[in-house]
Amino acid sequence: MTETGLSTTTAPAGPAALARQMARVAVLGASGYSGQEFIRLALAHPGLSLSVLASREHAGRPAAELLPGLDPRAVTLPTVAEPRALSDLLANEAFDTLVCCLPHGAWKAITEEHPTLAAGPARVIDLSSDFRDGRGQATSGTGYVYGLPEAFRGVLADATRIANPGCYPTAAVLALLPAAEAGWLEDPVMVSALSGISGAGRSPALKTSYVELEGGASIYRAGSEHQHVAEMERSLERLAGSPISVGFTPQLAPMSRGILLTANARLARPISPEEARATYVARYQRETFVRVLESDVWPETRAVRGSNRCDVALTTLHSGRTLLATAALDNLVKGAAGQAIQNLNLMLGWPESWGLPVHGSPW
Amino acid sequence: MTETGLSTTTAPAGPAALARQMARVAVLGASGYSGQEFIRLALAHPGLSLSVLASREHAGRPAAELLPGLDPRAVTLPTVAEPRALSDLLANEAFDTLVCCLPHGAWKAITEEHPTLAAGPARVIDLSSDFRDGRGQATSGTGYVYGLPEAFRGVLADATRIANPGCYPTAAVLALLPAAEAGWLEDPVMVSALSGISGAGRSPALKTSYVELEGGASIYRAGSEHQHVAEMERSLERLAGSPISVGFTPQLAPMSRGILLTANARLARPISPEEARATYVARYQRETFVRVLESDVWPETRAVRGSNRCDVALTTLHSGRTLLATAALDNLVKGAAGQAIQNLNLMLGWPESWGLPVHGSPW
Amino acid sequence: MTETGLSTTTAPAGPAALARQMARVAVLGASGYSGQEFIRLALAHPGLSLSVLASREHAGRPAAELLPGLDPRAVTLPTVAEPRALSDLLANEAFDTLVCCLPHGAWKAITEEHPTLAAGPARVIDLSSDFRDGRGQATSGTGYVYGLPEAFRGVLADATRIANPGCYPTAAVLALLPAAEAGWLEDPVMVSALSGISGAGRSPALKTSYVELEGGASIYRAGSEHQHVAEMERSLERLAGSPISVGFTPQLAPMSRGILLTANARLARPISPEEARATYVARYQRETFVRVLESDVWPETRAVRGSNRCDVALTTLHSGRTLLATAALDNLVKGAAGQAIQNLNLMLGWPESWGLPVHGSPW
Amino acid sequence: MTETGLSTTTAPAGPAALARQMARVAVLGASGYSGQEFIRLALAHPGLSLSVLASREHAGRPAAELLPGLDPRAVTLPTVAEPRALSDLLANEAFDTLVCCLPHGAWKAITEEHPTLAAGPARVIDLSSDFRDGRGQATSGTGYVYGLPEAFRGVLADATRIANPGCYPTAAVLALLPAAEAGWLEDPVMVSALSGISGAGRSPALKTSYVELEGGASIYRAGSEHQHVAEMERSLERLAGSPISVGFTPQLAPMSRGILLTANARLARPISPEEARATYVARYQRETFVRVLESDVWPETRAVRGSNRCDVALTTLHSGRTLLATAALDNLVKGAAGQAIQNLNLMLGWPESWGLPVHGSPW
Repeated sequence: MTETGLSTTTAPAGPAALARQMARVAVLGASGYSGQEFIRLALAHPGLSLSVLASREHAGRPAAELLPGLDPRAVTLPTVAEPRALSDLLANEAFDTLVCCLPHGAWKAITEEHPTLAAGPARVIDLSSDFRDGRGQATSGTGYVYGLPEAFRGVLADATRIANPGCYPTAAVLALLPAAEAGWLEDPVMVSALSGISGAGRSPALKTSYVELEGGASIYRAGSEHQHVAEMERSLERLAGSPISVGFTPQLAPMSRGILLTANARLARPISPEEARATYVARYQRETFVRVLESDVWPETRAVRGSNRCDVALTTLHSGRTLLATAALDNLVKGAAGQAIQNLNLMLGWPESWGLPVHGSPW
Repeated sequence: MTETGLSTTTAPAGPAALARQMARVAVLGASGYSGQEFIRLALAHPGLSLSVLASREHAGRPAAELLPGLDPRAVTLPTVAEPRALSDLLANEAFDTLVCCLPHGAWKAITEEHPTLAAGPARVIDLSSDFRDGRGQATSGTGYVYGLPEAFRGVLADATRIANPGCYPTAAVLALLPAAEAGWLEDPVMVSALSGISGAGRSPALKTSYVELEGGASIYRAGSEHQHVAEMERSLERLAGSPISVGFTPQLAPMSRGILLTANARLARPISPEEARATYVARYQRETFVRVLESDVWPETRAVRGSNRCDVALTTLHSGRTLLATAALDNLVKGAAGQAIQNLNLMLGWPESWGLPVHGSPW
Repeated sequence: MTETGLSTTTAPAGPAALARQMARVAVLGASGYSGQEFIRLALAHPGLSLSVLASREHAGRPAAELLPGLDPRAVTLPTVAEPRALSDLLANEAFDTLVCCLPHGAWKAITEEHPTLAAGPARVIDLSSDFRDGRGQATSGTGYVYGLPEAFRGVLADATRIANPGCYPTAAVLALLPAAEAGWLEDPVMVSALSGISGAGRSPALKTSYVELEGGASIYRAGSEHQHVAEMERSLERLAGSPISVGFTPQLAPMSRGILLTANARLARPISPEEARATYVARYQRETFVRVLESDVWPETRAVRGSNRCDVALTTLHSGRTLLATAALDNLVKGAAGQAIQNLNLMLGWPESWGLPVHGSPW
Repeated sequence: MTETGLSTTTAPAGPAALARQMARVAVLGASGYSGQEFIRLALAHPGLSLSVLASREHAGRPAAELLPGLDPRAVTLPTVAEPRALSDLLANEAFDTLVCCLPHGAWKAITEEHPTLAAGPARVIDLSSDFRDGRGQATSGTGYVYGLPEAFRGVLADATRIANPGCYPTAAVLALLPAAEAGWLEDPVMVSALSGISGAGRSPALKTSYVELEGGASIYRAGSEHQHVAEMERSLERLAGSPISVGFTPQLAPMSRGILLTANARLARPISPEEARATYVARYQRETFVRVLESDVWPETRAVRGSNRCDVALTTLHSGRTLLATAALDNLVKGAAGQAIQNLNLMLGWPESWGLPVHGSPW
């Protein structure tokens, strides 16, 4: 094993220190794809203890049934709890960190009905869109901070409530961040992206059935309706310092995981492909989880499959007046559960990449 | 069976007339995907007789071996010929129509080495990019006319040599044609598209191997390098009456067939979504093979799989200043062999849709 | 077009005769996969008029919405009816032939509740397992005859009620029929088969969701529990003249369509591979829809995709004491809707292969 | 992280001991699928140092180019070497352990041409079929021992040369081992299995091209010709103590990884399903990498994807006279690279499961 300084497996301290600071995590919504991916990643993270797994559908059953690949002989997981048992479990100090993997709308409703549960855990990360403002600053009122570390790292170390970004906005912002910060982008930005099917959730539906999807791709909700458009616009406005409108064409491709994204924008001044790439390389050189590909190499989702990495590539066209920026990430990892762990690492004062895979498993 | 006026199965005349005018076709490059698709479609076309099948790799072998799905008991096809035998076969009047399905560059080389073969057949359709000017007018010198009927039908009835358009340009031009003709498009146009793997040809290569492709998508040759960019630009310039630059992001998705394309452009004046869609509907209402989808319905490749149809949908954004136009087609049919038959029908004075499927087979 | 004596496109008589005898078909369960496949095939069959389409879920909506690939401009189909409207439609002579594509159990329940509807149509074909006895003889009581033409053709011409065989039993019986009839098979027979996912129906379920299936295969209900085991056993007993037990390992593979089946049995006497194959070839030589592959060529589902053909291959092992027989078919065509049309052709006195595809579309 | 006694991540000793005994591995054939999988697993194994990577095709290039998912910033790997440089590298003590991942025939040829290279390394594991006798005993002459730990563990600790079993035989033997050892099996045994496409290797070929495989399955080389049949027969004979003939139906399914296998045999005496399962459970209860599934649960390849585990399930039929035994494994892990590491662990006196994943990644 020959990892480098970017290594993701070094513990932040010795075993004693580790035991003291281990986070005891409750996963709410443990049976969905992002919940399962969080469990998969947490099992490999030395600082996280999976103390509570909650799922309405699987309550009372062994956790191994949640996760088709787990060998129950090789892991000890708690029996799946009823979500409504969380308040009592919290009162009994069964967990100190809550990771919410429920569908959009659910966590907000819970926080309104059960303010004690919402207020009690030392740390909460919500993977839904309920508290995402996209701006990376402490949101007045909710207390939730938008958790995209590469864009807004500064506010995360002190956060106790984080709204984990959407998969499409993570890819869009990482594809455009250096250009936005440099003030290059003219309004509007056009984004076209493919998503793997796990992005549509795990509830059975005709549109996510195998036969309806094999061997074909489709566009859905193109325009500016998709809930992710406003999230992209707020992040880009914050980074660019001026309003940016986004036009978006989301697409489903026949693959379980992955986001592959292309963003186009006119540029305020001509930028050569070399200058554009050099600016991106410089901006991302200290980021473990963003890699700017070599010139003339373009992203593929397989290269980041299972990892927390986002691959970015770009060029400029038309005498430097058009930006063509692209990104690939795994929607369940950097687009959901992996980014949640990256945010947890930051909240807990741990090395940001601790326990997170940087290498993808292409097949 | 309840077909309507758009019916594709009505013969142009009685059996006697049919027998007189049946085209005797030679398929050069019969073992590639577009060659095989042409054979599949021609077998269902009452006016086409497959007189010669030529393939260097399969010469001397039964045609059934070329086509995995064919039941050799139910079809009579000629033994596969050597491509170099075509000149003799032409001299013997074994065929009168040549359909060339070879890789790019091959037909041009043959025409230079064997001018008699190039000049002899009453009709030639070349599916490669060798003679595509994209402009839909009789090209000085070569005699090849660019065969995109919906855009440039007028010049095709009298043509004897047709350069069949590429799959990406067919989708791009059909997505943008009404806007270009209406003078709406500002330069440049940004195009992002997915292609099925058959678009990369049938020669074995690591990049088209199953394991390298399952469950993932990738971008390749993004920018303005792809050979299809100039083809799109020439067609759009011809339609718009002014130069249009194209920026292009081609992508491979894990599917055998299909093109799914998104085009974005700024508009010269604000156009409402309703006006934009109405203009497209009016422009395409008499086109059998282009269908403008209902509002808020977006294309999917499965819906056109196996058919010669292109589905188009569009809207405008940002107070009508941005066009978002999309299209789906089957790269082997409307993007290759089906369009070749559509062009043959036009050259032969037959109903343009004769023998061509309009309904897709989604699974 | 160069079809042979096995041609599937020749009408049985002139246009006038055709108009007189056109069957007016009601499809009950038009939104499932077998219902949709029946509609797709019926649209290409000159003798079938789709007079009524009934589906509880889609009642009142245009038929084009049922079928993602249909271009509604190019086909005239009736508005989807409520299933409970069928009795009135029958009374009004809106149809004379009923094809029932409902899930198992539904048609039997309807026949008990609505004996007039059950008794009224001139012809009924039920695609479920409700009335399958597997024996190919007029079943006392129900009136339903088991409709596997290659095995039990004799009783079908006079039938008015046909129970269409299951997809697995069709493949198993066609793989074993010549051996069973020849008296070679020792009890038991072991069958292992893969099915495409459309075999599990179109109702959304986690087990048929895309993400749960991509890139993996699974065994389910192995042993003798599967409802198709008894159906196989009854057919084989009838053909062999003695009881045959079947052990069955059904499997799901990540593909939309197709059955790929292997059957193993000990043989009552040693049979050489050559004798075995010759016996199969002789038995099937007049069957349009069964093809015995060349020696050392084995079935693949792609070769029969979309066609009504079943490809069979076999050998013997262990000094001729073990039979290894294999088959591939399209579960939605020869395993469901195509076989239903084959049975309709027989009931109506038409050429058995009329309107049915013999060539597969491998990609 | 809550691993149990089956844990795979505990080092065998403290850091000092580890440093002393770290194996310096040369991977020959580093660009194929099994070579790449070995590298992926070795990077996660604390006891293995990847000292030499050799590949004719990629010689002289950075190792990161070999492995699409690797982030070159996060790993230090040697530049890819020419295979012919191995002798010099061995002389310079650049490695002490050789893992050969070349196609069948290649390593045997090398051992004959370069006896010094063959004899030099302290340990050699060959993943090809060149030295597999299937019998799990020191083979006279070659020195290679057949490395299937669950069957023949006793001879592996002292081995210095191991022939790693094939993927199909590993699955077949693990499905049948308890029955064979118990003397239940009557000759012959019939095996039917699906393989993922990576089993066919990484050299581009039409038969492994994406378009030829999507959405379909096929049988190939059925009978007793497949090179794995003799390997299965020798292992089963050794375990059963009497000759066992195997009839085999290998199949390709559209999936990158995985073996799904069914074995059928008549039993020498009636065995109830309960007795059969209890015998399997008892035999495998101490095996980390074989799991007997609960009653009525059957294997699926997704559950073992990426892991070194083999899932087994079985029943008996026909009054206990027929065995139906099934297994699933990942052909690249338990069927190749993972089993090689399991064998390395044994040769090196380390815990057998050290560094190997037991949990699968189903999507």
